[in-house]
Amino acid sequence: MSSVIEALVKELGDQVRVGADIPLRNHADASGLAPTPPQVLILPRSTSDVATALRLCHEHRQPVVIQGGLTGLAGGAHPQAGEIALSLERMSGVEEIDPASATLTALAGTPLAVVQQAADEAGFLCGIDLGARGTCTIGGNIATNAGGNQVLRYGMARRNTLGLEVVLADGTIVRSLNKMLKNNAGYDWTQIFIGSEGTLGVVTRVVVGLHPKPQGQQTALCAVSSFEDATAVLRRFQQAHPGRLLVFEAMWREFMTVATQICGLSPAFSDEYDLTLLIEADMGEDPEGTETFSAVLGDFYEQGLIKDAVVAQSQADRNRFWTYRETPYEYGRFLPEEIRFDVSVPLDHMTEAVEHLRQEMPKQYPDAIWVVFGHVADSNIHINVAVKDMDDGIKKGIQGLVYDLVARLGGSISAEHGIGRIKRPYLPLSRTEPELVLMTTLKRTLDPAGILNPGRVL
Amino acid sequence: MSSVIEALVKELGDQVRVGADIPLRNHADASGLAPTPPQVLILPRSTSDVATALRLCHEHRQPVVIQGGLTGLAGGAHPQAGEIALSLERMSGVEEIDPASATLTALAGTPLAVVQQAADEAGFLCGIDLGARGTCTIGGNIATNAGGNQVLRYGMARRNTLGLEVVLADGTIVRSLNKMLKNNAGYDWTQIFIGSEGTLGVVTRVVVGLHPKPQGQQTALCAVSSFEDATAVLRRFQQAHPGRLLVFEAMWREFMTVATQICGLSPAFSDEYDLTLLIEADMGEDPEGTETFSAVLGDFYEQGLIKDAVVAQSQADRNRFWTYRETPYEYGRFLPEEIRFDVSVPLDHMTEAVEHLRQEMPKQYPDAIWVVFGHVADSNIHINVAVKDMDDGIKKGIQGLVYDLVARLGGSISAEHGIGRIKRPYLPLSRTEPELVLMTTLKRTLDPAGILNPGRVL
Ligand SMILES: Cc1cc2nc3c(=O)[nH]c(=O)nc-3n(C[C@H](O)[C@H](O)[C@H](O)COP(=O)(O)OP(=O)(O)OC[C@H]3O[C@@H](n4cnc5c(N)ncnc54)[C@H](O)[C@@H]3O)c2cc1C
Ligand SMILES: Cc1cc2nc3c(=O)[nH]c(=O)nc-3n(C[C@H](O)[C@H](O)[C@H](O)COP(=O)(O)OP(=O)(O)OC[C@H]3O[C@@H](n4cnc5c(N)ncnc54)[C@H](O)[C@@H]3O)c2cc1C
Repeated sequence: MSSVIEALVKELGDQVRVGADIPLRNHADASGLAPTPPQVLILPRSTSDVATALRLCHEHRQPVVIQGGLTGLAGGAHPQAGEIALSLERMSGVEEIDPASATLTALAGTPLAVVQQAADEAGFLCGIDLGARGTCTIGGNIATNAGGNQVLRYGMARRNTLGLEVVLADGTIVRSLNKMLKNNAGYDWTQIFIGSEGTLGVVTRVVVGLHPKPQGQQTALCAVSSFEDATAVLRRFQQAHPGRLLVFEAMWREFMTVATQICGLSPAFSDEYDLTLLIEADMGEDPEGTETFSAVLGDFYEQGLIKDAVVAQSQADRNRFWTYRETPYEYGRFLPEEIRFDVSVPLDHMTEAVEHLRQEMPKQYPDAIWVVFGHVADSNIHINVAVKDMDDGIKKGIQGLVYDLVARLGGSISAEHGIGRIKRPYLPLSRTEPELVLMTTLKRTLDPAGILNPGRVL
Repeated sequence: MSSVIEALVKELGDQVRVGADIPLRNHADASGLAPTPPQVLILPRSTSDVATALRLCHEHRQPVVIQGGLTGLAGGAHPQAGEIALSLERMSGVEEIDPASATLTALAGTPLAVVQQAADEAGFLCGIDLGARGTCTIGGNIATNAGGNQVLRYGMARRNTLGLEVVLADGTIVRSLNKMLKNNAGYDWTQIFIGSEGTLGVVTRVVVGLHPKPQGQQTALCAVSSFEDATAVLRRFQQAHPGRLLVFEAMWREFMTVATQICGLSPAFSDEYDLTLLIEADMGEDPEGTETFSAVLGDFYEQGLIKDAVVAQSQADRNRFWTYRETPYEYGRFLPEEIRFDVSVPLDHMTEAVEHLRQEMPKQYPDAIWVVFGHVADSNIHINVAVKDMDDGIKKGIQGLVYDLVARLGGSISAEHGIGRIKRPYLPLSRTEPELVLMTTLKRTLDPAGILNPGRVL
């Protein structure tokens, strides 16, 4: 046994596992990289255990990979050979809900769904929500500044975070379990750790701000002829009914064609349109809510902004509308191998971005099946490209096409999923040299021995 | 002439002023500290001028004080003997409004009112607003993470900031003029500079996110019997009408007594109540807006949460209601010398805080006239204490009373005005040792020669 493992076992006992005692789940995250067993798995029960583990690893210059729910798509929590994995899974539980402050305090390893449920039972809504809710952890959400479907209404994880407890690389515990909307007493150091993907410190405890629960939820599919009309619908809706819009997802023509002609869904509308929008809002309790919602969309129809629309009259309708948006989860069954992009593009360049793909994709990859869809209100689109006999050359080519386009238009190569290991080579496309130097300076300052998630982000 | 001044004059020419050429306005900010002329005043015209100035000051280890609109209340922009002042006043102007992205790009020295006006003309609302709007600068707002009356609806300056250009202490220019809601490409380094009060870098350019304009604005004064009832009103209003509440100000009994018995306003209600709330909401265009607003408040009255209420039927009514809230601006005319506190207290301890003051103030300072009021939805209260023949001993005593109370209840000694020079000695009351060490580490890393706003914050 190496001396760092001996020291860890001595101080942390059965919280330290090696070899066959390390469950397979800790060998990989959701990035699709080849599973790799960590050298050791540490399962701390408390913040002070985390501090002990990091202190020892820091002293021994031992690389550590931080693991939350392992649903990350960028390889941040995926072990590399020789790394020690530190998993937050035993540090799970909601510690307090403060109804006066509308805040919830939880250990970082608490699954998001547990946080959501606790908020719900206390009469509130947790503003963070994403597909991986059953498995991902609130600490992982904050470490990746996670987004999701309702960012439009509640913001990213950053905006929902009021306080943090963090263990630094050398084992120092820093705590600000702030519950207040306003606190300008010195630097808000917590901001540095939000979205730093475990490279600057380990989040052990969080205070999340809660929201009032929506009273109703109305859903519609709308057909529009251009992205410009889509943004007009967005802005006019927000103007007329501030704070009501919950979801504003766009699916471009190619996406709907795949959904109907390949995945076998029946067409949403009798005609084909350039864009289909999935819109959800809280216009109040039904049936009045649905009436108001239909009336708003009716106005947009009159104004020529919306060409066609269907409003859900039941939960079954709602599920059916979401089926279109969720076809990408089924692509594995229908399409050849895919590359998936999670990028953002400034809204005033969105049409240009899609037009460029429409021109270049058929030219450069005539066999490719590709779609564009996403949370457009947040500038965030997903681009999926499936190609038969995908190989590394094709992959690199398609990545080049998409990332160069995004860089040229002032977009971001990672809207919400983070950089991790997978997108690290492309970071300079979205960040200038002085920005990268500044990030590296922060990394060196907070983790001088470079033990935390090495090779991720930077 | 010292060598740093020579170097500055050589490279920046008439942007450098000395002696009598330095206007009096640059001798002081709004903190009330004794005016002090800076050694030199630099008036850069561009980001690269700022970079040149800082590079030279860094080389010569010359302390620099950064000046925006000089409306700060904490002494951050107030010169200390020997400092060179760098004022952003010539770097003023809105450079772009992007209606698709709903963003505005401006130079940091642009007055907030100019930013607001430009947003308004483009059909949007700027979410940052405060009393000093005509004089304070958007760069100063971001450097102090300014709050204001509408934080409840639009958040602090941080939440309204999407991109920044910053000049570091050594003259390096770092730029991320991001316009997108989602951008997880590496660390969001801009967060470090927001609220750092000019101690970590100079903000030279900003991208601000804009909001849809409210359609109407309804105003009411409401009487409630307890702070618990006030928070119930807040939560139920937000629950029933998400996104509609704009202002939620509380004025405790002592405040209304001063307003009526000393400042001469007529009582708002026939009876006396523990708390008076000033509530503003956007319930839509009038007259429907006012009707809905009155109906909501009517419900709270039926539920026994509100004891009495008056709803503004005209702009004149609205102004009259605000007169109560604005009496503190008149205290100078009516009261002896005051100390003013801008603190925050977690909402579940607010009643305890006020009760403690009610017990201790009369005991310790029988002659004191004191009031509590503020943006309670954000946990932010102002406490003003006026005492005849105020001296340093009394000042220290009252500061001790208030700050110890705030510290004990887990509050913050600065909700929105910042730490600057004035609150620096009290920072340890709101921050633990590891937090202060982390802040100091950040300061040393980003400003190793310690030239930027020395003696502020830390
Ligand atoms: C089906 C599915 C849907 C998804 N939808 C979305 C979506 O809509 N929006 C979105 O943004 N993401 C989405 N994701 C990506 C992923 O769920 C999020 O990034 C999530 O926030 C990761 O949480 P986790 O606990 O699983 O973290 P992990 O995967 O365990 O880790 C992610 C990163 O954070 C670090 N980390 C984890 N916990 C901590 C901690 N306590 N302290 C410090 N660092 C830590 C890890 O080292 C790693 O770098 C989705 C993933 C899946 C599989
Ligand atoms: C009547 C009145 C009402 C007010 N109401 C509020 C309120 O409701 N909420 C609130 O939060 N504050 C309020 N304030 C305080 C003050 O207006 C704010 O702090 C404001 O944001 C300061 O902006 P400024 O441009 O005047 O900054 P300055 O006073 O010039 O500077 C403030 C601090 O920021 C630094 N700074 C300024 N510009 C830059 C820059 N470009 N780059 C880096 N650092 C910089 C300075 O060095 C200093 O430390 C009020 C003040 C007054 C006089």
